[in-house]
Amino acid sequence: MLEVALFGAGRIGRIHAGNVARQPGVALRYVVDVDAAAAQVLAAKHGAQVASAETALADPAVGAVVIGSSTDTHADLITRSAAAGKAIFCEKPVDLAVERARDCAAAVQRAGVVCMIGFQRRFDPTFSALKARLDTGEIGDPEMLVVTSRDPGAPPVDYLKRSGGIFRDMLIHDFDIFRWILDDDAASVYATGSVLTDPAVGSVGDVDSTVVTLRTRRGRLAQINTSRRAAYGYDQRFEVLGSRGMLQAGNHRPTEVTVSTADSVSRDLPEHFFLERYRAAYALEMAHFFDALASGTPVRTSIADGVRALELADAATTSWREKRIVEL
Amino acid sequence: MLEVALFGAGRIGRIHAGNVARQPGVALRYVVDVDAAAAQVLAAKHGAQVASAETALADPAVGAVVIGSSTDTHADLITRSAAAGKAIFCEKPVDLAVERARDCAAAVQRAGVVCMIGFQRRFDPTFSALKARLDTGEIGDPEMLVVTSRDPGAPPVDYLKRSGGIFRDMLIHDFDIFRWILDDDAASVYATGSVLTDPAVGSVGDVDSTVVTLRTRRGRLAQINTSRRAAYGYDQRFEVLGSRGMLQAGNHRPTEVTVSTADSVSRDLPEHFFLERYRAAYALEMAHFFDALASGTPVRTSIADGVRALELADAATTSWREKRIVEL
Amino acid sequence: MLEVALFGAGRIGRIHAGNVARQPGVALRYVVDVDAAAAQVLAAKHGAQVASAETALADPAVGAVVIGSSTDTHADLITRSAAAGKAIFCEKPVDLAVERARDCAAAVQRAGVVCMIGFQRRFDPTFSALKARLDTGEIGDPEMLVVTSRDPGAPPVDYLKRSGGIFRDMLIHDFDIFRWILDDDAASVYATGSVLTDPAVGSVGDVDSTVVTLRTRRGRLAQINTSRRAAYGYDQRFEVLGSRGMLQAGNHRPTEVTVSTADSVSRDLPEHFFLERYRAAYALEMAHFFDALASGTPVRTSIADGVRALELADAATTSWREKRIVEL
Amino acid sequence: MLEVALFGAGRIGRIHAGNVARQPGVALRYVVDVDAAAAQVLAAKHGAQVASAETALADPAVGAVVIGSSTDTHADLITRSAAAGKAIFCEKPVDLAVERARDCAAAVQRAGVVCMIGFQRRFDPTFSALKARLDTGEIGDPEMLVVTSRDPGAPPVDYLKRSGGIFRDMLIHDFDIFRWILDDDAASVYATGSVLTDPAVGSVGDVDSTVVTLRTRRGRLAQINTSRRAAYGYDQRFEVLGSRGMLQAGNHRPTEVTVSTADSVSRDLPEHFFLERYRAAYALEMAHFFDALASGTPVRTSIADGVRALELADAATTSWREKRIVEL
Repeated sequence: MLEVALFGAGRIGRIHAGNVARQPGVALRYVVDVDAAAAQVLAAKHGAQVASAETALADPAVGAVVIGSSTDTHADLITRSAAAGKAIFCEKPVDLAVERARDCAAAVQRAGVVCMIGFQRRFDPTFSALKARLDTGEIGDPEMLVVTSRDPGAPPVDYLKRSGGIFRDMLIHDFDIFRWILDDDAASVYATGSVLTDPAVGSVGDVDSTVVTLRTRRGRLAQINTSRRAAYGYDQRFEVLGSRGMLQAGNHRPTEVTVSTADSVSRDLPEHFFLERYRAAYALEMAHFFDALASGTPVRTSIADGVRALELADAATTSWREKRIVEL
Repeated sequence: MLEVALFGAGRIGRIHAGNVARQPGVALRYVVDVDAAAAQVLAAKHGAQVASAETALADPAVGAVVIGSSTDTHADLITRSAAAGKAIFCEKPVDLAVERARDCAAAVQRAGVVCMIGFQRRFDPTFSALKARLDTGEIGDPEMLVVTSRDPGAPPVDYLKRSGGIFRDMLIHDFDIFRWILDDDAASVYATGSVLTDPAVGSVGDVDSTVVTLRTRRGRLAQINTSRRAAYGYDQRFEVLGSRGMLQAGNHRPTEVTVSTADSVSRDLPEHFFLERYRAAYALEMAHFFDALASGTPVRTSIADGVRALELADAATTSWREKRIVEL
Repeated sequence: MLEVALFGAGRIGRIHAGNVARQPGVALRYVVDVDAAAAQVLAAKHGAQVASAETALADPAVGAVVIGSSTDTHADLITRSAAAGKAIFCEKPVDLAVERARDCAAAVQRAGVVCMIGFQRRFDPTFSALKARLDTGEIGDPEMLVVTSRDPGAPPVDYLKRSGGIFRDMLIHDFDIFRWILDDDAASVYATGSVLTDPAVGSVGDVDSTVVTLRTRRGRLAQINTSRRAAYGYDQRFEVLGSRGMLQAGNHRPTEVTVSTADSVSRDLPEHFFLERYRAAYALEMAHFFDALASGTPVRTSIADGVRALELADAATTSWREKRIVEL
Repeated sequence: MLEVALFGAGRIGRIHAGNVARQPGVALRYVVDVDAAAAQVLAAKHGAQVASAETALADPAVGAVVIGSSTDTHADLITRSAAAGKAIFCEKPVDLAVERARDCAAAVQRAGVVCMIGFQRRFDPTFSALKARLDTGEIGDPEMLVVTSRDPGAPPVDYLKRSGGIFRDMLIHDFDIFRWILDDDAASVYATGSVLTDPAVGSVGDVDSTVVTLRTRRGRLAQINTSRRAAYGYDQRFEVLGSRGMLQAGNHRPTEVTVSTADSVSRDLPEHFFLERYRAAYALEMAHFFDALASGTPVRTSIADGVRALELADAATTSWREKRIVEL
């Protein structure tokens, strides 16, 4: 039985706890959270104990940690967990500062532990099926990628202040998708953005609407468009043009009901937000993590991927702020 | 130049006039209608003359007639046109009485003239593409046919009184589709119906909603469902299940616009009614008629098809009225 | 803690065991199966014990039974469970003989126990959303129902021999959908069928392709078409025409990937068969059963529904065999 | 009767001739082409005469000209037609050199004649319906535009050499769409491109794959992606994100047939290329031109629009060549 310590008993922590509990041969032993009450509720639900980070990391029975606490704790927990020899699953981002993220990657490498970063989109059934078909050559060589990534609504301004900005907070997922789908990396980045949904976003020095262009080392082209607000819900699509065709990943809908009235023929809105859309992805990434640990195979989303996505987010932030093309 | 006499200057007559005018090597010479003013307007538009039926049929320059006048005139005009040696295009139905329809078919055969019945649906781009793919064996042997055929709204009761009833007036098209798509014929018919949209329909001894089952001679199965009222417009779909797959013919929409709002993701309603949906079909059937005349090849929808569809409509009417399965 | 005895450790039994295990406040105590090895594996997985039916039903700690054993055991187990005062969840059908099914219903009523029949389709997210929207009046009064229900392939002939025939085995679900969606009942049934996929089906006196027409007491019309074989997979659709529009329930697909090549624009096949398509439905029906027990509210699919669906299946079988319309 | 001189008897000239012939109150009087045989065939078909440009422009009976000859003749013919007081319909582009295009615009203004540029996409039923719905406020204020514009295959290298480059030849339409849909103009342009489909494209100093980002004066954002090759055909889509929703314009398909086999569920490819996709648009733009002349109302796509789209194409070309953001 592999025993697990979970850091974070909030929204994403609860999802990870449920998925950890579902893995055969895996047990949740500790829940760690500054909010003792939340930790207690979650621990009780899964037959685990509340503990401090020190206790959890010092327990030699703990083989793996799952880090779902706030972003500013990630780097410290990764470093300490690596030092304690634990296998690590950590929510994105590694850190908002690329230097600290690189330090974490170095610490992981020194310790020789597994460290997986939670880019759950790579495990989404639609996205991963698309990638598998791309890899079989079904549409030939990929040439162009267009990513649409829109949230149903902006988070509170308080969150935005600590978010690192839209490129690090929101587009970091899209940068990872870009690298994964094209199996290539960025040679240059151009980004621009606007405040179109709420002036409050601008008041904290951020934007809510962005467009990004990436050229890859092999000359392929990618465009990303994002918005903090899509009135119709969570919009998560991308398409790849290849030399012999196109693959498109569409939104998921709650049901397959169509209604035709005197006004229109209509379908459900997309699944509302990431908890709904990526429910399966969260389960599949956790299964992948423990499968990789069990079999000794590499994880699909390494800490290097986490660092690289952050570097692209930094480059995009620079491009937007300085109004210039950033070469990488 | 092939000269043509057109009977009927109403809605469908005007469509046929326009399509006749577009055929190369074909000219509209006469327009015949009891409504002299309507005939005059239509004749003027196409550089034709208003004439009586006698004059038009007596003119040896006239090689073909197009009959788009009221149903009760069809049989007489077919018979006289055949006797005058004219090639004949006639709107469905041949007649509401199957005996008279058979007499017309006999008159056509005796005269040795071409006679095409206007089952325009066989020329609809979607329906004819489906049929062509079925004929290539793309889905193997056809086993089952499901036809959905709904009008946007019921015609006036005055029309219903003279219509011959819903099976002869509306389903005659669906019976023709059934025979054409399955390339088979009915061994038995079961039909039932209800008055669900407007009690006025019942007051003239008709129904507005029907379901029909046909077994073919080879044991294939077909279902037809119809309604005089679909709030969302003209609904014209069918699907064929075959041994290796399924072919479906969907509705046509005016545009490919999709709108996503906080309420729904919606598309256009289907094209509103037969004039919109079958605009291309009306043009293609007329081109087919004159092509067949020019090349001496058979027409796709013969008077025998017209008679047979009427026989099925009669059988369905009997099944509904007498509440029994009718063997054919 | 509500303790449960499960009868049947086969395919459907394993699904129910997993869903029982997921209910809060519910524990699987016994697994009963003539195949001791299968029972042992399933019991071990869920921390339950293997037991005989006698033992399980005699244990006063057992509050509910879940019957997923072979059809010929249902009636006996329902009767004995009812006598033992257990709440009952039983897979469809109650029995293949309507008289025995009615006896079961009487036994349940005498015992005053809850008895839910596993018409899982009513719990499918798409179907239940459609029903909820219909009930809000979104499309006005329902007038017509068209059900398409096709399996990916026929079961072995050995199964067919014991199945009660296609109307009892396969269409029983569609008859339940019909009653549930229209909130009405059949006044007459007409059914016919053919052997189109495999002569072996005919050799055991059954058919593999059927079409059924139902008239309801209020004059509404319904058509069902079924086949034991759809090359493209499990086809589970229906549509309701109402006075103000139409509601359609479409198939579920594994992913939302679209591929465009030089040949076509294509999507995934439907989810392959009932275990995939109704995975959510099986979970939701079990949650509903235990919620109803906990709250004392009625179950959505009662034993009376099971008896009535069987009566319609019998009527359809008679209609097909005797080639006549059956009045109810 | 308004008499018209047509310049150009090639592919697009023949389409325009047919559409001119269909306008009530309009007659095609002259066809002008350096290829006398082509001119003769087209003139004969429509009852017109072959003439030189001089003759056609000198004839006071000619009220309007339609210019569909090669790009290098546009400026000269516009200038001379304006000087002769003719109303002008001219295919895009006005000229490949923006200075000459501006001179044409000045000549048109001095002469006070109507001059419409053939940006037919504005007349496409799907695109114009989308624009109309956007204008009603159905999705609130537009914020972001994403345009996908791909040809089925690259033209011959000989054509590419004289084309002015992909931004002027192909994207000029997309720049016009951008201005029209957002009712706004570009403040900055960033473009990059690659040679991904055929090295021959690179050998003439052009690219075949491009991505363009535009910021508007009001801070809105637009992305355009284009390719000279989409294996699946002509891909002409765009979508507008607004404050209250999204409008999408999809491809048109030849038929509404869906086929489901053991492999996939598939639909038709998009209509193959611009002659098929924009057939209705070509007819509607010509009707609009003559309607505007008859009623004295402004044309929807003026020569100023033609000049402005060319300016954006020039800016994009500069951005791509000089690897910099171009402010406008």
